[in-house]
Amino acid sequence: MYPDPQSITRIASIGGGPIGGGWAAHFLARGYDVTSYLHDPAEIGAFRAILDTAWRSLTDLGLAKGASLDRLTIVHNLKDAVQGAQFIQESAPENLAMKQALYKTLGEIVPADVVIGSSTSGLMMTDIQAECATPERCVIGHPFNPPYLLPLVEIVGGKKTSLDAVAWAGRFYEIAGKAPLMMKKEIPGFVATRLQEALWREALHMVANGEATPEDIDIALMNGPAPRMVAQGQCMAFHVACGAGGMATNLDQFGPALKLPWTRLTAPELTPELRNRMVDGCNAIAGDRPFEDMAAQRDREIVAVLNALRDVRADQTP
Amino acid sequence: MYPDPQSITRIASIGGGPIGGGWAAHFLARGYDVTSYLHDPAEIGAFRAILDTAWRSLTDLGLAKGASLDRLTIVHNLKDAVQGAQFIQESAPENLAMKQALYKTLGEIVPADVVIGSSTSGLMMTDIQAECATPERCVIGHPFNPPYLLPLVEIVGGKKTSLDAVAWAGRFYEIAGKAPLMMKKEIPGFVATRLQEALWREALHMVANGEATPEDIDIALMNGPAPRMVAQGQCMAFHVACGAGGMATNLDQFGPALKLPWTRLTAPELTPELRNRMVDGCNAIAGDRPFEDMAAQRDREIVAVLNALRDVRADQTP
Repeated sequence: MYPDPQSITRIASIGGGPIGGGWAAHFLARGYDVTSYLHDPAEIGAFRAILDTAWRSLTDLGLAKGASLDRLTIVHNLKDAVQGAQFIQESAPENLAMKQALYKTLGEIVPADVVIGSSTSGLMMTDIQAECATPERCVIGHPFNPPYLLPLVEIVGGKKTSLDAVAWAGRFYEIAGKAPLMMKKEIPGFVATRLQEALWREALHMVANGEATPEDIDIALMNGPAPRMVAQGQCMAFHVACGAGGMATNLDQFGPALKLPWTRLTAPELTPELRNRMVDGCNAIAGDRPFEDMAAQRDREIVAVLNALRDVRADQTP
Repeated sequence: MYPDPQSITRIASIGGGPIGGGWAAHFLARGYDVTSYLHDPAEIGAFRAILDTAWRSLTDLGLAKGASLDRLTIVHNLKDAVQGAQFIQESAPENLAMKQALYKTLGEIVPADVVIGSSTSGLMMTDIQAECATPERCVIGHPFNPPYLLPLVEIVGGKKTSLDAVAWAGRFYEIAGKAPLMMKKEIPGFVATRLQEALWREALHMVANGEATPEDIDIALMNGPAPRMVAQGQCMAFHVACGAGGMATNLDQFGPALKLPWTRLTAPELTPELRNRMVDGCNAIAGDRPFEDMAAQRDREIVAVLNALRDVRADQTP
């Protein structure tokens, strides 16, 4: 029913803020034609500034063949925006009533085989699609800020979304140069924001209790977990750090630490089922790579990141 | 009372595991003479392997002038290890009774003007120093794994530690090429591990509830928060993302989201005092840099990191 995601060449981007502008810049950099809908002509100056800023970074990352800012059209009429679009990225304000009305309109004016991805970071698709006559093609496609740089897009449908549309979105975003995460359930905060929010709330507790300052929080993150987290997520970081025993050793040895007051978040019970899900999941990611190889790769990547940061910071020193 | 931290040339590293080995490698790479105490001669092979692995990365990061693995001495007698040492990094097993006995002995055989830093990740210095006759020079110097690569060292004293020793450790670790974080209070998990643990427990809850797999968690972190977190900690990420309004805009606008179920960790009450600590803290970090400059610097660093990762991964492709 949906067109081949490889065949997509024209995208409509709804919204003139940092997210809508970031998406427009990303798709242009990947070589798509983009029509951006801005509610008010007065937004054009700020919108162009967002694109110009993003374009500098996108150029440094490498543009697709034929990519050009000249392939952007800015319109102020929704019908003009979606005319001929083969995919729609919606980044309207985070207001449920506004989004519901928008999707009601889009349901009327956009052919049913055009998938609509919402950038919402706080709303659920089940709610957003409530008044849309063609809800089955409406999915969440949630980026991470800044959307023109960070690869993650979290993808999940609402209750009325078809599985085909969700799968299509995953393939499309991947072709468009993103790192899609196909979510297992529709949950508040999705995956990345939930993890970030847990960390953020712990940070706020620490500042509230005089245990750390904002500067302490940032020093800790930038010099501790972060350079490793670009190379390995938290699961594989623990898996590889435990040597050949991997996640099984981690949970069997350090599982009792889940009872310790190392954060204000109570841990789940470490049931055999949870243990096995973690162990099996890490083993699946690792495949047949020996842990020494994964540790060496981690180290090479951390070194590359630290050297890259040192170089770019040295360039800034007056 | 303590010697000039710039004058330190000889370090004793206690412990032959990945942390003790990582510390020895780091100090050697910074040009120090290092004597490593290994409890059992049978540990030597594994210990040498840790150093050889670390040395490859440390060489790629850049060795200090005169740095050499030949400046390592391995001993199996504690008195030999601390003989002539001007600083001691203790990375013994995480067993309180064992550490208490060790610090009792160190208190007897190490001159009182030699600071001892403990790598412990789970114990408190107030407990570790309980039986030491010279507890005032005993501090926590907690690294982040792998300790030869990640810059962070969290520094805090116990109840009997002198403020001079804590301050000395901060200066010494900085001279030795680390990023010291001077902690405000002695709390379980210190700062970085607490933040990481909050994220980890949220991840375990999500896996336990079938909301995400370990692979989902890692995809989300590596492609979302991580590449930005090396450039900006969570506080400055929110500060700069909100434009000229900064953290004040973030908290005033998104503060209500702290009540939303975006993680299982309940947030603290956003009191005026907490708000102001966050706002003042971020403004202090920012200084007089306009947010556009900070956003542009963030983007340059993210681009550098993404390009560095792409290059190092391309080199691995067979």
